[in-house]
Amino acid sequence: MKFNLTRKFIDQLSALIKEDKPNKVLGLVRDLHCADIAEIFEEIEFKKSAYIYNLLDDNLGADVLVELDDDIRESLLKTLSPKEIAEDVIENLESDDAADIVSDLPQEKKEEVLSHIEDVSHASDIADLLKYTEDSAGGLMAKEFISVKTNWSITQCIKEMRKQAEEVKFVYTIYVVDENNILKGTLSLKKLLFSNAKTIMSDIMKSDIIMINANKDQEDVANVMNKYDLVALPVVNELGQLIGRITADDVMDIMKEEAEKDYQMASGISDDVESNDSIVEITKARLPWLLIGLIGGLIGAKVIGIFDIEKNYEMAIFIPLIAAMGGNVGVQSAAIVVQGLAGGSVSIVSMWSRLIKELGVAIVNGLICSLIILIATYSLGYDMAMSITVSISLFAVIIFAALFGTFVPLTLEKYNIDPALATGPFITTVNDVLGLFIYFLIGQMILGL
Amino acid sequence: MKFNLTRKFIDQLSALIKEDKPNKVLGLVRDLHCADIAEIFEEIEFKKSAYIYNLLDDNLGADVLVELDDDIRESLLKTLSPKEIAEDVIENLESDDAADIVSDLPQEKKEEVLSHIEDVSHASDIADLLKYTEDSAGGLMAKEFISVKTNWSITQCIKEMRKQAEEVKFVYTIYVVDENNILKGTLSLKKLLFSNAKTIMSDIMKSDIIMINANKDQEDVANVMNKYDLVALPVVNELGQLIGRITADDVMDIMKEEAEKDYQMASGISDDVESNDSIVEITKARLPWLLIGLIGGLIGAKVIGIFDIEKNYEMAIFIPLIAAMGGNVGVQSAAIVVQGLAGGSVSIVSMWSRLIKELGVAIVNGLICSLIILIATYSLGYDMAMSITVSISLFAVIIFAALFGTFVPLTLEKYNIDPALATGPFITTVNDVLGLFIYFLIGQMILGL
Repeated sequence: MKFNLTRKFIDQLSALIKEDKPNKVLGLVRDLHCADIAEIFEEIEFKKSAYIYNLLDDNLGADVLVELDDDIRESLLKTLSPKEIAEDVIENLESDDAADIVSDLPQEKKEEVLSHIEDVSHASDIADLLKYTEDSAGGLMAKEFISVKTNWSITQCIKEMRKQAEEVKFVYTIYVVDENNILKGTLSLKKLLFSNAKTIMSDIMKSDIIMINANKDQEDVANVMNKYDLVALPVVNELGQLIGRITADDVMDIMKEEAEKDYQMASGISDDVESNDSIVEITKARLPWLLIGLIGGLIGAKVIGIFDIEKNYEMAIFIPLIAAMGGNVGVQSAAIVVQGLAGGSVSIVSMWSRLIKELGVAIVNGLICSLIILIATYSLGYDMAMSITVSISLFAVIIFAALFGTFVPLTLEKYNIDPALATGPFITTVNDVLGLFIYFLIGQMILGL
Repeated sequence: MKFNLTRKFIDQLSALIKEDKPNKVLGLVRDLHCADIAEIFEEIEFKKSAYIYNLLDDNLGADVLVELDDDIRESLLKTLSPKEIAEDVIENLESDDAADIVSDLPQEKKEEVLSHIEDVSHASDIADLLKYTEDSAGGLMAKEFISVKTNWSITQCIKEMRKQAEEVKFVYTIYVVDENNILKGTLSLKKLLFSNAKTIMSDIMKSDIIMINANKDQEDVANVMNKYDLVALPVVNELGQLIGRITADDVMDIMKEEAEKDYQMASGISDDVESNDSIVEITKARLPWLLIGLIGGLIGAKVIGIFDIEKNYEMAIFIPLIAAMGGNVGVQSAAIVVQGLAGGSVSIVSMWSRLIKELGVAIVNGLICSLIILIATYSLGYDMAMSITVSISLFAVIIFAALFGTFVPLTLEKYNIDPALATGPFITTVNDVLGLFIYFLIGQMILGL
């Protein structure tokens, strides 16, 4: 059943740990899902987490480790010897989770752990997986899957599957390969269950399969599985040989990660921070963006300084308006492009048609906003020259910001830099500065600063 | 195999449609995945999409409809009669996809379509699903699942399953219910396949199941499936009776949707826009946020107007700096809280401890930034009083923005309003205005405006 973590539960647990009542503590957590226990660990002090972890049986403990945040997991692993990690943790995990844990260990500990794994094929599977970068299809896949040969009958299959299924937690699809291990088709368990015992695999398998190369990026994996509504995706090497499978639960994690990354970039937070990280960690993730803003502000000051603001101090009054609108429009344009690129929908539309469309939107928005501001300023009592200056500047800034906001992420993407970098403080800051420049330039022409 | 949509392919397809060569057109698309055909429809004119749609066999056509964007789907459905929709589309779809399509139809067409569905149980399943709101667990679930009784043997199960499996596309889990249809356990196909034929369900089923109530929000569905790494989630009613199941592919769609929504809010785009929407649609989604910025700018102008800027026109020079920094800090704080709330990690940490932590981060960032700005302005040649004014104001604005940025989303959440509303232009605009007020207030105290 679904568990709801409450303050009361945490307090109760903490009290029992303080009184050193291991049996009662274990009684509280033993029947929880590993993801729930991991959630508890993230809410209590590390010492208490370690206390609970040591009470758990190896299987549950290993599953909890997989679910934990990197920092707590790392601390817990530090308390274990390489032999304990190998025997209590790694041997209880599927290859992909095991590889994730091993890959986070320091180099020398990594090798020692691998050498302590008794199941040689498990150890070699893990060593295999460690060759791939963490954010590639190969880094995501598990080595546990069911594969059968094209010329086998259903009876043969079921016999072979009994052996293989031992180590595979969930079976969603059966992969059919030829004698060279080249992936030829897939078969659902449903079909296996309801076909005649003598049927040969190649006659009932689905040969129209979607697969992915192990070197592809995790974002591609997520896009493919999402687009084709897959719960499992087979991974092949350059030769087309089946080497692993990725399941939907891993992809959900990636999707969350990628979405958070883009969101954080747009909101000016670098790195992966969470709301329960320490003050120093949070500061480190945010300060860089603030410094960009700071430098932008200083350059903005310089720009204003170029012009003679003393004579036309009224221009100062609309600085926030111009700066804010430039920033808003720029971020909007950039966000649409970033999202389009991530979802793949901008891919075949050319950069030019994209820029032209943004220009269209900017002209409509710009005209509406400029008209409103012209009427507003004039009716607020500013003279016509000033009102026209603000209105024209606003229009120019909106057009500029829209094009700039579109152009930057598209250019970043072209040079294989994450286009999401373009959103957030970066666009806002550059827009602020250039927007001010445009504003004062127009002011100079109309008002003669 | 994975298909890559190219400009060349589109051109080739368009040319064949223009020459009215239905067989050649069909030859190009017939073997594509429905998701790929949907992608093509989104890149070509509607008339051409309709041409292709009419060539597809009903089964593929129905699948393509499910994958399409709402606007193209709606246009295609308008070309079909209620009878055609019922017989060619709805009868070929699982209940959840069918319900999604029916729910988008105008009321009178909806009833007519339902009346034309020949399979009565399918029609009543769809009518059932239409009762739930689109973004609830009930609105997401499908009625096609395999359920067996607790006291059945494996042999009995397989016999019953053959009947049920007809209409279920993918079987991941078998649900075990009691005589009142109350969900009691789950069984994997793997276990079914490898257990003794006489075993009774209740002896091998997993009784520790995660399920969700049909009235829960889709965000809860995504959180539960993601947290517990599930590929299928059973849906129950208030009595605990099994009424449907949700699969991981639906959840991936929701996750994408929710992430896009938050991202769009943070970047100031209301509604669900995509980069290939029309100029009018895009404008409509963006203008509201720009108007907020516009009003903020006008209020900002009013604030500056209160103070005598003529005498201290130098203060104008740092307006962009103060405004930008306030906006940046506010959005950062709000984004962290919004993300924490979405992921559930802020849930048990109280509002106060959250505010205190943000205060800590703000003090550190504020001190660093203020010190830098003090040194920078003084060395750029501004007098000490001015430099101190800017520096103190910056510190005050950073502290204020951090607290404001934290407080607003937490308050919105408390009153069940989407906290993501707090990010983006809203926070930036309010921060701009209040930041300016703080700046000039401090300026008045130190410089005596």
